[in-house]
Amino acid sequence: MPVDPTASTEITAFRWVPDFAAGLVRDLRIRWALEEIGRPYKVRLLDALHPRPADYFLEQPFGQVPAYRDDEVHLFESGAILIHLGLGDERLLPADANGRGRAIAWLVAALNSVEPAIFELSAIDLFNRGEAWTRERRPQVIDKIRERLRLLAEALGDRDWFEGRLTIGDLMMVSVLRNLRNTGLVAEQPRLAALVARGEARPAFQQALADQLAVFAAHQPQEGAAA
Amino acid sequence: MPVDPTASTEITAFRWVPDFAAGLVRDLRIRWALEEIGRPYKVRLLDALHPRPADYFLEQPFGQVPAYRDDEVHLFESGAILIHLGLGDERLLPADANGRGRAIAWLVAALNSVEPAIFELSAIDLFNRGEAWTRERRPQVIDKIRERLRLLAEALGDRDWFEGRLTIGDLMMVSVLRNLRNTGLVAEQPRLAALVARGEARPAFQQALADQLAVFAAHQPQEGAAA
Repeated sequence: MPVDPTASTEITAFRWVPDFAAGLVRDLRIRWALEEIGRPYKVRLLDALHPRPADYFLEQPFGQVPAYRDDEVHLFESGAILIHLGLGDERLLPADANGRGRAIAWLVAALNSVEPAIFELSAIDLFNRGEAWTRERRPQVIDKIRERLRLLAEALGDRDWFEGRLTIGDLMMVSVLRNLRNTGLVAEQPRLAALVARGEARPAFQQALADQLAVFAAHQPQEGAAA
Repeated sequence: MPVDPTASTEITAFRWVPDFAAGLVRDLRIRWALEEIGRPYKVRLLDALHPRPADYFLEQPFGQVPAYRDDEVHLFESGAILIHLGLGDERLLPADANGRGRAIAWLVAALNSVEPAIFELSAIDLFNRGEAWTRERRPQVIDKIRERLRLLAEALGDRDWFEGRLTIGDLMMVSVLRNLRNTGLVAEQPRLAALVARGEARPAFQQALADQLAVFAAHQPQEGAAA
């Protein structure tokens, strides 16, 4: 159970988020990887509902979570943190140049070829919900996501993981696809649905998810409390 | 002059694209890095205006350019290709864990924290131009980009490059910011405008850009020619 307040590896995470984000905040990606390799880490909590402290932007230029530090590095961006962990542990990333490069290619594909359209859908369904423009735009974004998922499912084929064995590319792709959990879009591609289920079934994922959710449960805002 | 038809390193690129995309297509990112390290490469051309050949999806799951191969790897995603090149050459990526990790963090930030909003603006200004929804959405997207660029300029501070020396993080960030060339948004942040100018002034960038544009010039569609 890698959460350990005495660990030298530290991530930042939010104290509490609304239900739509619970189980999806990006520290989960790092918790999952750290669980896979059994590396203890501690968590520094930030308030999602208030502006970040000014000095946090020195750690994370956009004020997002997670920021990450260990004995070697101070990092930000979940993709970069996973690559750092992978370069240090073959259980997350093969050491040969082609295996390493291809795993990183899937990770980058998740972040730049799949997730941007999902960001747009999140704006439509959550952050800008009900605005007039979303009615015309939503079907276009859904089509774009559908087409990407169709190609992604073809690329996965009958393999369990994108390169045949679990890598940080799979951790990132599963994490990104989980953001569609309320849409039914992943279910339309049974191979991708099976991939996500395979990732979520891993004990390391389960522990990471439980640990993220436990923080939110412990910091549930009190009804009627002052903001 | 690394373009060399006998090279074992190969990238894919488009034969021709419309003006709005010329000088921005993603093979430029790889050409630039290869020029920085003087590694010869050859170019395999694809037709942007027609569907990709079916077997191209085995190289690039979404049919995009560039795909990349050398004696060691078969890769896709410009971010992953830059990381592969960087891991093999300290001129592109420091070898120490923190320097390496932070350069990769800026590369990932470019792809996942900056470029997605630029994709949305490209939809509004180019691919879905004139559609009713774009009028309401555009100012929101502009605000989002402005806020990201403000934070990015603060993070850069007075340094020439994000980590003080040129890395693949700068190559990617400059490449992503160049997509805003018709908007004036980068000019609002003088530090970022200077960063882009610094990148574009490099002989390696100039050569890479000239080589991409030369291909388009040589394959200009003939007026009145059958499609």
